[in-house]
Amino acid sequence: MAGRIATRLNELGITLPKLGAPIANYVPYRVTGHLAHISGHGPVGADGRYVTGMVGAGVSPEQATATARIVGLQLLSALSDACSGDLDRVRRCVRLFGLIYCRPDFTAVPAVMNGASNLMVAVFGEAGRHARTTIGARALPMGISVEIDAIFEIA
Amino acid sequence: MAGRIATRLNELGITLPKLGAPIANYVPYRVTGHLAHISGHGPVGADGRYVTGMVGAGVSPEQATATARIVGLQLLSALSDACSGDLDRVRRCVRLFGLIYCRPDFTAVPAVMNGASNLMVAVFGEAGRHARTTIGARALPMGISVEIDAIFEIA
Amino acid sequence: MAGRIATRLNELGITLPKLGAPIANYVPYRVTGHLAHISGHGPVGADGRYVTGMVGAGVSPEQATATARIVGLQLLSALSDACSGDLDRVRRCVRLFGLIYCRPDFTAVPAVMNGASNLMVAVFGEAGRHARTTIGARALPMGISVEIDAIFEIA
Repeated sequence: MAGRIATRLNELGITLPKLGAPIANYVPYRVTGHLAHISGHGPVGADGRYVTGMVGAGVSPEQATATARIVGLQLLSALSDACSGDLDRVRRCVRLFGLIYCRPDFTAVPAVMNGASNLMVAVFGEAGRHARTTIGARALPMGISVEIDAIFEIA
Repeated sequence: MAGRIATRLNELGITLPKLGAPIANYVPYRVTGHLAHISGHGPVGADGRYVTGMVGAGVSPEQATATARIVGLQLLSALSDACSGDLDRVRRCVRLFGLIYCRPDFTAVPAVMNGASNLMVAVFGEAGRHARTTIGARALPMGISVEIDAIFEIA
Repeated sequence: MAGRIATRLNELGITLPKLGAPIANYVPYRVTGHLAHISGHGPVGADGRYVTGMVGAGVSPEQATATARIVGLQLLSALSDACSGDLDRVRRCVRLFGLIYCRPDFTAVPAVMNGASNLMVAVFGEAGRHARTTIGARALPMGISVEIDAIFEIA
């Protein structure tokens, strides 16, 4: 029998991406007590390649918002693995930290991050509402447009 | 009867600002176990508008230090809400993360962040001493000069 | 009798550096429950001075990777203090957050951070594998090349 969140993902037409291998000497997440610390993940496009480019210089805010949602899906994939595949164990999204590769005069980083935040709320409802910090980054791994890490409380 | 920290705030002449509404799809804080994760907050000036501008390019280090204190007050306001108004429940300030919107050659970010750190120690004493990480940011939401998030342990 | 990790450090030829005094109003670490939050630390060179400079503009990626390892040693020194000198109390490295002072077009920040990550795995083995977030920073305290903070779970 599918779980409540699995059913919700299905309703939303979401299939979680395969959990990508870390690009360096770290792991996708670490659990300590009831907290799952998810690593900073990046956006893997439909072609299997990272989505790169600077917001405000070739990448539009709208594109970046869609990219933030893609990163959110990667976070959910890591989270699912942390829960042995049972996302009903998720009690709440505690915090998202969003890093946006952008021009120094770009001020709409919160709107970009909503691409990921809206996803969490859509999937988990009230439990998906989270604390959040967002920064414009000078550089990100491989030149990706958006990197996000997360803390979830799990049962 | 006023609590110990409320009395201390009064001694310091501090009235906590009204907790501002988040500017996007997130909440001002999330509590998990005994940890209150406070979102990245920005400085709301006396005129009710965000304090913006780049340190080293129009904004002086001294102004930025005062701005970091204003952000600290916002953090305390969110923390108070997380404690249902009773700041005596705060056991310790665990960590501050300071993001300073500045020129690439600005090196005095620690002095700027002291504007917030000094506030925490003034209010909570030894319990206000915290771990800290400070970064010069390429961009911040709405062009604010300082953004800070925090973790507090609460009873 | 020397502990397991002390023996391991000895095998690796590592002597932990003296824990430096924070450069502003914060402490090197804060413990809450089983979590030790280590402050953002910087690289202190053999001459006792901070290692500064921008990666991709005077500092090579290889130099920065070595610098990240030096910061990792500072983190271990703070962690040891948090454990009253007994690193056998460390259960796992939960998360590293790496801030690399670099050019906006520098994309190899993950390789730089491996300088610290490889150290954690060398010292703690499987327990040293961690979640990780890495960002290219616009500015860092005193112009240091690398700043890293950490969360460890301790007994």
